[in-house]
Amino acid sequence: MSTAVAVKGLEGIVAANSGICWIDGEAGVLSYRGIDIHELAVHSTFEETTYLLWNGTLPNQLELREFQSQLSLARELDFRIIGLLRSIPASATPMEVLRTAVSALSFYDADEKDNSHDANVRKSYHLTAQIAMIVAIYDRLRKGLEIVPPDRSLNHAANFLWMLNGVKPSETATRTLDVALILHAEHELNASTFAARVIAATLSDVHSAVTGALGALKGPLHGGANEGVMRLLYEIDKAGADPVVYVRNMLAAKQKISGFGHRVYKTEDPRATHLRKMSEQLGKDARQTKWYEMSRAIELYINADKKLNANVDFYSASTYATLGIDIDLYTPIFAISRIAGWTAHIIEQLDDNRLIRPRAEYIGPPYPARYIPMAERG
Amino acid sequence: MSTAVAVKGLEGIVAANSGICWIDGEAGVLSYRGIDIHELAVHSTFEETTYLLWNGTLPNQLELREFQSQLSLARELDFRIIGLLRSIPASATPMEVLRTAVSALSFYDADEKDNSHDANVRKSYHLTAQIAMIVAIYDRLRKGLEIVPPDRSLNHAANFLWMLNGVKPSETATRTLDVALILHAEHELNASTFAARVIAATLSDVHSAVTGALGALKGPLHGGANEGVMRLLYEIDKAGADPVVYVRNMLAAKQKISGFGHRVYKTEDPRATHLRKMSEQLGKDARQTKWYEMSRAIELYINADKKLNANVDFYSASTYATLGIDIDLYTPIFAISRIAGWTAHIIEQLDDNRLIRPRAEYIGPPYPARYIPMAERG
Repeated sequence: MSTAVAVKGLEGIVAANSGICWIDGEAGVLSYRGIDIHELAVHSTFEETTYLLWNGTLPNQLELREFQSQLSLARELDFRIIGLLRSIPASATPMEVLRTAVSALSFYDADEKDNSHDANVRKSYHLTAQIAMIVAIYDRLRKGLEIVPPDRSLNHAANFLWMLNGVKPSETATRTLDVALILHAEHELNASTFAARVIAATLSDVHSAVTGALGALKGPLHGGANEGVMRLLYEIDKAGADPVVYVRNMLAAKQKISGFGHRVYKTEDPRATHLRKMSEQLGKDARQTKWYEMSRAIELYINADKKLNANVDFYSASTYATLGIDIDLYTPIFAISRIAGWTAHIIEQLDDNRLIRPRAEYIGPPYPARYIPMAERG
Repeated sequence: MSTAVAVKGLEGIVAANSGICWIDGEAGVLSYRGIDIHELAVHSTFEETTYLLWNGTLPNQLELREFQSQLSLARELDFRIIGLLRSIPASATPMEVLRTAVSALSFYDADEKDNSHDANVRKSYHLTAQIAMIVAIYDRLRKGLEIVPPDRSLNHAANFLWMLNGVKPSETATRTLDVALILHAEHELNASTFAARVIAATLSDVHSAVTGALGALKGPLHGGANEGVMRLLYEIDKAGADPVVYVRNMLAAKQKISGFGHRVYKTEDPRATHLRKMSEQLGKDARQTKWYEMSRAIELYINADKKLNANVDFYSASTYATLGIDIDLYTPIFAISRIAGWTAHIIEQLDDNRLIRPRAEYIGPPYPARYIPMAERG
């Protein structure tokens, strides 16, 4: 056995070398391949950002066109996956459905048994396109609506909104979602990405790793938190309560408020800055500032009283609500974005692999405990 | 960023406190809840061992009867899961199928949204029974055979062989598989168990964690290795080659031989001791000693030449082959057993949870890298 003491949750333990993401939690800096997230949020697109994450550099015009074309060509789902989605009861949550459908996609992927770099990149294109499609298609099926075929002329964000709603999205809605996808695309060794690397490191495969990552993202301490935020806002609204009083009472009763604090950031989460602005602007445009205002009041109170900052999940809730998106699609939308980072990490892991296999500090009955024969057991 | 240097593969890093499994890699000791694996292999059953892993102590007569009864009552699959299995192309590997079907099981589990200790134990009974059923049923379906209904009078090992083959298994076959299930049930923070804990620690759920674990087990550096061993034996047999010459040539060509060496054991894997004996005895009984003899010759050569010991995967291959089990079911059989350990760890994690979120050592372009406008890109 190891003589070391367990660092619970591996906090501060360095588990991998990675050239993908640099975070300075003290200064509130997030960068992809060295480029500040604020630059990307203002100037980039989800497609360009995904290219950057996978390849390490920004694409030139030709490379970007080729990338966009590959991604839109990958908007295909085997008819048997659609059949699977049709067979799932409408009571299933979209994250369970996504986890299951992504696992099933491997049956129909010609590269399933190929773990080479090039095959992994092909699978990454497929999964990036397919995850968005699965979320949109399942949402329509469970509502009894017709499936909307993909539109290859639209970018990734716009095509998702089109397949979800069956109407062409406004420029504002498209750009808002596009920026949200940029902001959520990558975050170093968060729990889902780490799970993906642990799975890939057995030389399993991309589908297994992404399926595991989806399972991790589902948790309320990870991607599931954005749904928790919106459920709270709805609850407060329904009760007609003052948000600050409501949250103060929750904190007094030792209840946790989703969307605040972060394992890594000790100051404002740089992603929250952009989501706050978008939430406010969207609210103004839609003349529905309620969710933004409630959120802002809660944020200021928790900042002052608990010294906790809003994280990426906090304002993504009001942003998605104002875009008219169902609450249980918030975490799937996180997945629609984070697939870019997951696949970048899986490719990086498999390009220079070592099995990830830590040890445990044993705290059970001392060895050797006796195998007590049945006749002697109490 | 952390200033520490990455320990690649988290080798020797203690990632959790756990009271389930104690391993002494130097001395070749494996114990479950303090009880030596040799005691369990000789005296215990898979059911009793699973009870031990979940509860921390051996059951008395009444507790064991209740446990056996719960487990056999859990031999039920929603008809829609059978429908899903029927819809999967016969080209899909059983591990892909198992990963997908376990993910889909959450749709029909009444406890899906309940992460309490008691609900997690109920889910553990269900999954332990269901994983064995799914493997047997899919194997029959892909061969065009009728599904064999479970027999509640049989123990776990015998019921699996019954549902797989449609004939009542011999006592020797049942006990051989029972011991193999005991030996594979638990192994501390191996990659699949660690993946399960990372996923569960987001407060996701048992089905997500087990689905991720199945994805990890599939990899040839983990559970997939036992299939690799048998493929090699078949290859040597087909070539009519001398096993030692064949393996020597492979090693000279820098090829890896599955089933040797272990991250944790520096001496003989204590599980290999039992599997070697069973492989030999089964071979004698069946008058088919070929696989055992080839295995033994390879083991002695690699022991002497490479100072590497056979691990759990090496003799499980010839054991399962002599039992007449298809090669691509070896890793699923590992899962049929390891579900006991996975669920013990998931329950332990959720009983005292902390998010598992390590850091990476950044080796990418220095921050801040400039966001080069498109017009300036090469």
